[in-house]
Formats: sequence, structure tokens, C-alpha cells
Amino acid sequence: MTDNNIQTNSITLLGLGSMGTALARAWLAAGTSLTVWNRTPNRAQALASEGATVAPTAAEAVAAGRLVVVCLLDDESVGAALDGIDLSGKDLVNLTTGTPAQARARAEWARERGARFLDGGIMAVPPMIGVPDSGAYVFYSGSEDLFTEHREALAVPAGTTFVGVDPGYAALHDVALLSAMTGMFAGVAHAFALVRREDIAPTGFASLLADWLAAMTASVHLAAEQLETGDYTTGVVSNLAMQVAGNATLLRTAAEQRVSPELLTPYMALMERRLAAGRGDEDTTGVIDLLAVG
Amino acid sequence: MTDNNIQTNSITLLGLGSMGTALARAWLAAGTSLTVWNRTPNRAQALASEGATVAPTAAEAVAAGRLVVVCLLDDESVGAALDGIDLSGKDLVNLTTGTPAQARARAEWARERGARFLDGGIMAVPPMIGVPDSGAYVFYSGSEDLFTEHREALAVPAGTTFVGVDPGYAALHDVALLSAMTGMFAGVAHAFALVRREDIAPTGFASLLADWLAAMTASVHLAAEQLETGDYTTGVVSNLAMQVAGNATLLRTAAEQRVSPELLTPYMALMERRLAAGRGDEDTTGVIDLLAVG
Ligand SMILES: NC(=O)c1ccc[n+]([C@@H]2O[C@H](COP(=O)([O-])OP(=O)(O)OC[C@H]3O[C@@H](n4cnc5c(N)ncnc54)[C@H](OP(=O)(O)O)[C@@H]3O)[C@@H](O)[C@H]2O)c1
Ligand SMILES: NC(=O)c1ccc[n+]([C@@H]2O[C@H](COP(=O)([O-])OP(=O)(O)OC[C@H]3O[C@@H](n4cnc5c(N)ncnc54)[C@H](OP(=O)(O)O)[C@@H]3O)[C@@H](O)[C@H]2O)c1
Repeated sequence: MTDNNIQTNSITLLGLGSMGTALARAWLAAGTSLTVWNRTPNRAQALASEGATVAPTAAEAVAAGRLVVVCLLDDESVGAALDGIDLSGKDLVNLTTGTPAQARARAEWARERGARFLDGGIMAVPPMIGVPDSGAYVFYSGSEDLFTEHREALAVPAGTTFVGVDPGYAALHDVALLSAMTGMFAGVAHAFALVRREDIAPTGFASLLADWLAAMTASVHLAAEQLETGDYTTGVVSNLAMQVAGNATLLRTAAEQRVSPELLTPYMALMERRLAAGRGDEDTTGVIDLLAVG
Repeated sequence: MTDNNIQTNSITLLGLGSMGTALARAWLAAGTSLTVWNRTPNRAQALASEGATVAPTAAEAVAAGRLVVVCLLDDESVGAALDGIDLSGKDLVNLTTGTPAQARARAEWARERGARFLDGGIMAVPPMIGVPDSGAYVFYSGSEDLFTEHREALAVPAGTTFVGVDPGYAALHDVALLSAMTGMFAGVAHAFALVRREDIAPTGFASLLADWLAAMTASVHLAAEQLETGDYTTGVVSNLAMQVAGNATLLRTAAEQRVSPELLTPYMALMERRLAAGRGDEDTTGVIDLLAVG
């Protein structure tokens, strides 16, 4: 066992909300020597009986080890919890959700205090943490040295995906995937609304819907290639003109089924704007250009 | 070989656009005796040399066999192409995209003319037709007898999924899945826009995005169960209140990356409306209730 392993086998964790508690249990189950702290102390009690050392203050928790993992409500609470605490020589891993700019500012803040910094975006809900093959993983960005040295410990609760030395990239990847999911959920809501007043079982319909959407995710690869080359006409199967024509059937069906089209119309409006700009032979990829502001 | 098989091994196909031509090639490759017609005759020439019988008029094409498949631009063109033609005793399969109401009206129209009617919604693009394991399939609804008798022939170009005797259900399933896909594509466009001005390769990002979205499709099963029971609080992992709070990070990140939030805000607005109605402990499933109009 090397010094590195000894270091990474000892972790301080600040924050025992639902996610922090799930992380704590995963590390305890792996035999990690874990020091925990939570603002409201009683949330730490169950973990104490499971083998965690409970620190009375955040400062004492931080002093207990080199690798300090923070999983609090938001970036503001990270600043509040660590305010005035000596971080020199620490490896700070921030698993608190935030924006890219918040992560970059927090990295600079940590650097000023003599700590290495790694930001993380957790792509999972608590029940998936520490469960092998659950698909849970964390985007990491910032100090690659920190990531490499502690990778084994970080890989205990969930898979690890390092996405760059820019500390904002983990949050950016996290938010980008959640944003895409939000769009998908909006489409799913519209689809369920369409079949709702009919004699169609939601559960049977859901299987068709899930399979279809999973198959259609493959289309992102073509869009990515088009973005890389800048040529949105390569590999097009149904061009923008055809797709805009098809939208009419979607809107007409929504009206027939008495479903508000409000979740679909903004995207359709952008397709029409691009078509009106003479780009009917392109793929829908051109819509991405229209989203840039400033 | 039974009489049924002899019947189904002979098909009339009206419409040789990109989809009709792909269907024709799949049936010809399977050894089907195929009679084709297209309004613009020269689109039929290549198929003649591949073994199709080209009929000079739609009436003659229809007269050539019992099973008549129509794949034209839209419902209006179906009416135009079949206007005044004797359909008595025919089995009419309409693979033209339309709305549920159009399919129901067309079924009634066919019934009045003495034909059995099956509507179809093609869940594929032409290159997938006739390709084993391409995932291509067609939703069918309407005459179940017609479907059962001709199933073997219908299964040649693509898989078959019968979704009900209501002739509008194929179109409804078709449009519902396309609508959900439209939402997903809107989310994907937003996601690509977010990472666009950064040093992040679209193709690498696309793999993360595709895997994430495919994994998240599983959530539709829980939504379906909640819709079936009417209880939107069962099985909730992240409730509406938490998700609305999370939206703030998505919007803030969009602003930081100078991306218009217009594709996400309508869904977020519905989430907020439902939360304001005191449903913070529910899943986002309640948004579906808000889409109903009239
Ligand atoms: N839960 C999920 O599904 C999920 C998924 C991915 C990412 N995340 C992220 O993980 C982080 C934690 O989420 P969670 O679900 O564990 O949240 P949670 O259950 O609401 O817990 C919030 C934690 O933050 C602490 N906290 C809040 N304000 C504080 C302050 N000013 N000073 C010190 N501590 C403060 C709370 O302490 P008290 O106990 O004293 O209130 C608690 O430990 C969030 O950034 C979240 O976005 C969560
Ligand atoms: N292509 C796809 O990716 C796809 C996917 C799923 C479903 N579909 C559906 O399949 C159907 C056909 O699509 P497609 O891609 O083959 O379209 P297409 O290439 O544009 O072909 C349209 C066909 O309709 C005919 N037509 C149009 N108006 C007519 C009229 N008034 N009378 C008689 N014939 C008329 C055209 O004849 P002319 O040659 O004389 O113009 C041509 O055969 C559409 O409903 C479409 O929504 C297509």
C-alpha cells in the first residue's frame, strides 16, 4: 500500500442531505475511514453507528484529512460552510450542483486558499449511489492531478468521467445533459397528453415510447458531425423542409386531441425561421445556431 | 399454399415517392407480385426493370389485386388518387401520414365504398425499409381481419404493431412518438448550444448525451404507472419542488453560455404552475394534466 492509497482511504465529507448520506454509506461500505459533518447535527447520528467519525464543526472535519468532499445544497452553502476554514494543502472535491461560472469562481477561491480543486456533477439520484451497474456516474473537471491521485476513492460511490481541466466543464456537462433531458420530458408529457383521453393504456404506450426515444438518441451523432464540419447538409435523411411540413400533422393532431401545443411550438418556430432563411435542404442542426444570443 | 397466401403475395402500391419506392423494392426483393402506379409516370420506370408491373392509371392498378397499399403525400392526395375508383371488395392499407381524425374519416370513406380499411403509421425513414433489424416498424389500426390476413405481406418492408380497431390509433401513436422525439430534439439542440463555444468536441459530447438520454427514457414507465393510478406521488425520486429549484441552475447556465432558454422555458413554466397549485410533492407527471385544453 502506497502513501497515496492511505490518503485516499480516508475521506472527509461535508453535507449529509440525501445525496451526502448516500455517498457516506457507499464509502463506509467500502471500508473507507470517513469523517462527516452536517450543519444540522442529528442527520449524522445514524452514520456514526455505521462507523463514521462525526466532527462537531466543519473546521474539525476538514482538519481530519486531506481529501475533503463537499455535497451541500448550492454554491452559496459551500462558501458559508467553509468560510474561514484553513484549506491549505487540502484536496477539495465539490459535488454540489452549480453553474460553470460558480465552479470556476470556486476553483479560484480554493486556489487562493492553497487547496487543489476538483468540481463534480453527479449524474444520478441517491438510490443509485454505491450500487454497481446502476449507471451512476460523476462528471469531474479541474485539477487532473487531484483526480488521478484520488480516482480509486472517487470511483466507490459512482463511475468517474473526467471532462477537462477547466473547472467549469463538469457543471457544463451536467447541466447540458439535464437540459436535454428536460426537453425529452417535455416531449414525453405532450405524448402522454395526446393518448390520454383514448382507450390506450399508459403503461403499454410507455414501452413503445421508451424504445422509440432510445432508438432516436442515435441521431445526436450525426448532428455532432455536422456541427464539427459546419456542413449541416451532409447525411440528411429528412431535410428541414420535409420536417417543417411534418410539423403541421403534429399540430393538427394536438388540436384534435385537445392538447396544448405549447411544449412543441418554440422548436417548430425555430425550424420555420431557419427554413425561411433559405436552409430547407439542411438538417434541423441549424436550429442550434439560432439559440446563440449575444 | 392457401388462398390467403396467394392473395397476400400480390400487392398493388399507389405512390412511388421516396417511401413508396422503398416499400416497392422491399416487396420485389421478397418475390411479391407487385403492381405499381405513380401520378408522375417516370418514377415507376426503374421499378419496371426490377420486376414491377406498371399500371397506366390508378384505377387499373387497383383492379389488379385485392390488397391495395397507398403511400402518398397526405390524406388529400389519397382522396384525389382514389377518386371515383371502384374499391368494393378491396383491402385498403393507407400508409400515408395523417392525423387520427383523417384516418377515421378515411376508414368511413372506404367502408362506404365496400373496402376494408387499415391505417398505418411508418416509424422509419426509407433507408430502413426492408432492412432486417433496422428497427423499422409500422403502427397499424383499423380492420383487424385485414391485418391478420395480410400480416405476412405487410411484415416484409418493416415490423408490424397493431394498436387497435379504432382506425385513428395508428396515426395517434405515430404522432405521439414523433411529438416526444421533437421535444427530445429541442433539448438536444439546447445542450449542443450550451457546449458550443467551449473546447468540447461535439462528437465526444454526443456519446455522453446519447447514453444519458437513452438511460433516462426508463422514467416514462413510472410516469405511465402514475397516470394509470392517478397518484403522482408514488415512486417519486426527485419531487416537483426539487426539480423546480434545479431549473434555476439550468437557466443560469444558459445565460452564462449565452444560449436562449426558449426551448426549455415552456416546460419549466408548467412545472412552476403545478408547484404554485400546491403539488410540490408530486412527480412532474402533473404537468400532463395542464396540457389538456377544452
Ligand atoms: N438528490 C439528488 O437527486 C441529487 C442528484 C444530483 C445532484 N445532487 C446535488 O447534491 C447536492 C446535495 O443534494 P441533496 O439532495 O443531498 O440535498 P438536501 O437533501 O437538500 O441536503 C442539503 C444539504 O446542504 C446542507 N446545507 C444547506 N445550506 C447550508 C448552509 N448554508 N451551510 C451548511 N450546510 C448547508 C444541508 O444541511 P442541513 O441538514 O443542516 O439542512 C444538507 O446537508 C445538491 O447540490 C444537489 O443538486 C442531488
Ligand atoms: N420519407 C420518410 O422519411 C417518411 C417516413 C415516414 C412516413 N412517411 C410518409 O410516407 C408518405 C410518402 O412519403 P414520401 O417520403 O414518399 O413522399 P414524397 O417522396 O414526397 O412522395 C410523395 C408521393 O405522393 C404523390 N402525390 C402527391 N400528391 C398527389 C396527388 N394529389 N395525387 C396523387 N399522388 C400524389 C407523389 O406523386 P408524384 O411523384 O406524382 O409527385 C409521390 O408519389 C407521406 O405521407 C409521408 O409522411 C415518409
